[in-house]
Amino acid sequence: MGLSKKPYKGTRDFFPTDKRIRDYLFSKMTEAAHLFGYEPYDGPMIEEVALYSAKSGEELINDQIYSFTDRGERFVAIRPEMTPTVARMVAQIHKEEAKPIRWYSIPNLMRYERPQRGRLREHWQYNCDIFGAPVGRGELEIIQLAIQLFKNLGANSDQFEIRLNDRRIVDSTFKKFLGLNDQEALQLYKIVDKSKKIGPEALEKELSKMGFVAEKRQIFDSYLKLDSFEGIAQFIKNNNLQEEAEGLLYFIEQTKQLGLDKYLVYDPTIVRGLDYYTGLVFEIFDKHPDNRRALCGGGAYADLLKIFNEKPLHGVGFGLGDVTLRDFLEIHNLLPDLKVQENDLFLAAMDDTGLDGALKLAGTLRDNGVRVLTHLEPVKFKKIFPLAEKKGARFVGILGEQEVKDQNIQIKDLETKDQTTHSWSEIEEITKLLKL
Amino acid sequence: MGLSKKPYKGTRDFFPTDKRIRDYLFSKMTEAAHLFGYEPYDGPMIEEVALYSAKSGEELINDQIYSFTDRGERFVAIRPEMTPTVARMVAQIHKEEAKPIRWYSIPNLMRYERPQRGRLREHWQYNCDIFGAPVGRGELEIIQLAIQLFKNLGANSDQFEIRLNDRRIVDSTFKKFLGLNDQEALQLYKIVDKSKKIGPEALEKELSKMGFVAEKRQIFDSYLKLDSFEGIAQFIKNNNLQEEAEGLLYFIEQTKQLGLDKYLVYDPTIVRGLDYYTGLVFEIFDKHPDNRRALCGGGAYADLLKIFNEKPLHGVGFGLGDVTLRDFLEIHNLLPDLKVQENDLFLAAMDDTGLDGALKLAGTLRDNGVRVLTHLEPVKFKKIFPLAEKKGARFVGILGEQEVKDQNIQIKDLETKDQTTHSWSEIEEITKLLKL
Repeated sequence: MGLSKKPYKGTRDFFPTDKRIRDYLFSKMTEAAHLFGYEPYDGPMIEEVALYSAKSGEELINDQIYSFTDRGERFVAIRPEMTPTVARMVAQIHKEEAKPIRWYSIPNLMRYERPQRGRLREHWQYNCDIFGAPVGRGELEIIQLAIQLFKNLGANSDQFEIRLNDRRIVDSTFKKFLGLNDQEALQLYKIVDKSKKIGPEALEKELSKMGFVAEKRQIFDSYLKLDSFEGIAQFIKNNNLQEEAEGLLYFIEQTKQLGLDKYLVYDPTIVRGLDYYTGLVFEIFDKHPDNRRALCGGGAYADLLKIFNEKPLHGVGFGLGDVTLRDFLEIHNLLPDLKVQENDLFLAAMDDTGLDGALKLAGTLRDNGVRVLTHLEPVKFKKIFPLAEKKGARFVGILGEQEVKDQNIQIKDLETKDQTTHSWSEIEEITKLLKL
Repeated sequence: MGLSKKPYKGTRDFFPTDKRIRDYLFSKMTEAAHLFGYEPYDGPMIEEVALYSAKSGEELINDQIYSFTDRGERFVAIRPEMTPTVARMVAQIHKEEAKPIRWYSIPNLMRYERPQRGRLREHWQYNCDIFGAPVGRGELEIIQLAIQLFKNLGANSDQFEIRLNDRRIVDSTFKKFLGLNDQEALQLYKIVDKSKKIGPEALEKELSKMGFVAEKRQIFDSYLKLDSFEGIAQFIKNNNLQEEAEGLLYFIEQTKQLGLDKYLVYDPTIVRGLDYYTGLVFEIFDKHPDNRRALCGGGAYADLLKIFNEKPLHGVGFGLGDVTLRDFLEIHNLLPDLKVQENDLFLAAMDDTGLDGALKLAGTLRDNGVRVLTHLEPVKFKKIFPLAEKKGARFVGILGEQEVKDQNIQIKDLETKDQTTHSWSEIEEITKLLKL
């Protein structure tokens, strides 16, 4: 019995095509971030568990975190999310730094999940955060940035939507009107969070545990039925929540001005499981009927630096995983074909002398930035072209004893079928041809 | 007392400048790999410990690995090196794949080290491997690729050198001439490996434990004194090692033909600690007097697929860490200045109306690929230019009530001091100017 060839449960081997797809996603993420002037950062893959205990919520710590004690008796975890790390890093430098601070990263994260479609134990997550922006403006930019990414990936408002809500409104509704304490409010958050997934019967059962009197239950039901910005505006008015709703109403107004409202819907069930959100919260959803799931979640948080004994600093951010994003692009046919890696020249030799020459010529061309694939043993003529095509090369060069003697090379363009002969010394000319 | 803001011991926070440097290194690594047609791959950050026990050597497993038992009772480790993972992945597909298989990756790895200059607990490592190439040809290409990376980073043969040796020669010397068994040979490997570090006295002490008779000790001493290709050629002749030395001699001959010999030196103390090497082994060294350390290590391995019950497949590869590479580039002044992130346009507003306009215009420009940094609150005129310069923008645009009313914008080129006025509708013209 040999060792298993499979990757660890819930993780992936990225073979070249998969890795090229991941690289493509990362390049689009980087591009979107740079269009908005977000700067790259990264932290360690391990953090002390205390960093997560403080703010990430019980479920994550108890059930999902990869934690262990290191050889120096430190209780540590593989990072399950990036926000605590970015908060820790910003806490180090925010006093000296000009605001707003705009940062992005694409770390690998691990959570102990039961592997299923769209959910794995290891994934890569695009994180964008803005710190110290005027309240409302930061929220707007973060949403713009998320939309930009999807647009640049070729997606439109028929394919994805941003569902949003505001924790200030939910908090007031739960605490002021329903009279819940922190503990009960948290319990109701969890029920609301999963309300669409579990179906009406199970929801009813969960809610009955809360023991609402009829009047309060009615308020809750009317809240949970809201499904439009007009609806929430009316609810705000009816319940005298203008103060708590200021942020949301301003945000909605701004997105209309920028023509972003076509991407947005109000959703009372969006509350985000994590404990640190304090304002606007949102999730991006796939609208495809076969893949109606969240692709991205984020929101505003005011107090994340407090755990480091720093003054509050307004932050807004989101996280977007590579697994669900790839599923989204595949179901909407938005992924480019990346099966074959691009090369500029396939350089083959028909004999050993040709091969020695090929290695020499390849070296000079590579110094000029030409991507040259050399076949490392002599190949029969008729096998060369099929091989070159398979390897993604547009141009093919063939060397044998005669060509080495003459110090020249015939290059064939597989697209135009043109064939040209060049002296080895004409490196610039050859380079120009191959880098067409 | 707040939580610690420091990263976990021996790991790094990559603030934007550090991350841009890492991105720069990665882009050069990717470029070098693509020049040779190497394709990207990646594996999970966690593997079963058994994968490392099989081949990686005792020191790594006992002292250096981050291992723990997961919630499903699997004994796993954060990957300390990439070769076992790439072997596992190649074992899955090598039968169907055309040879040679050329792969590269840049994973984050962890080892439990005592942090010191050039050595941290977490690092990123460039891995290049070629499988199924004719013996000798693969070795040559891997060395070429490593040299290409250094050349493309601006380094030359005064700054780095490749020290090489061959395990077949060392094995024969240890076993045939010194009469050592596997266990003793391994012990001597370790002594040789650290011989330069510990100094002659400590070396003498270690060697005396081996209990060599005078004649054998003389052979060993003459081996350890070798310091040139001529020397090892003579040693091979004297000791009748032609068969074992065929690979090395062919390799040296080839590198001469390709003009690579100026980068190479023979070094009898290069044996590589890891158990899986079976042929050529090498390390790349910094030649700077203040930083004489290994930057990269690699070699040929024949038997890595055996642990998966697969037939042997000849492989050659190397690993190169980001920590030592950055030290190398810094000490030789080869790092570009990456303190500030490039932007195309700094778009500032003098009042709220200007700000609303700026957000709108910025959106259209970003759709055209222009990197626009918007300041999210109104700024006083005299503060705008210092801010723009600090943010790495070459162009500055300023909007106020009047400009919004006229739907135009003045753009100033900070380099040429040219100032031009454009209508908002001339997006293509503005884009052309800004993407200069």
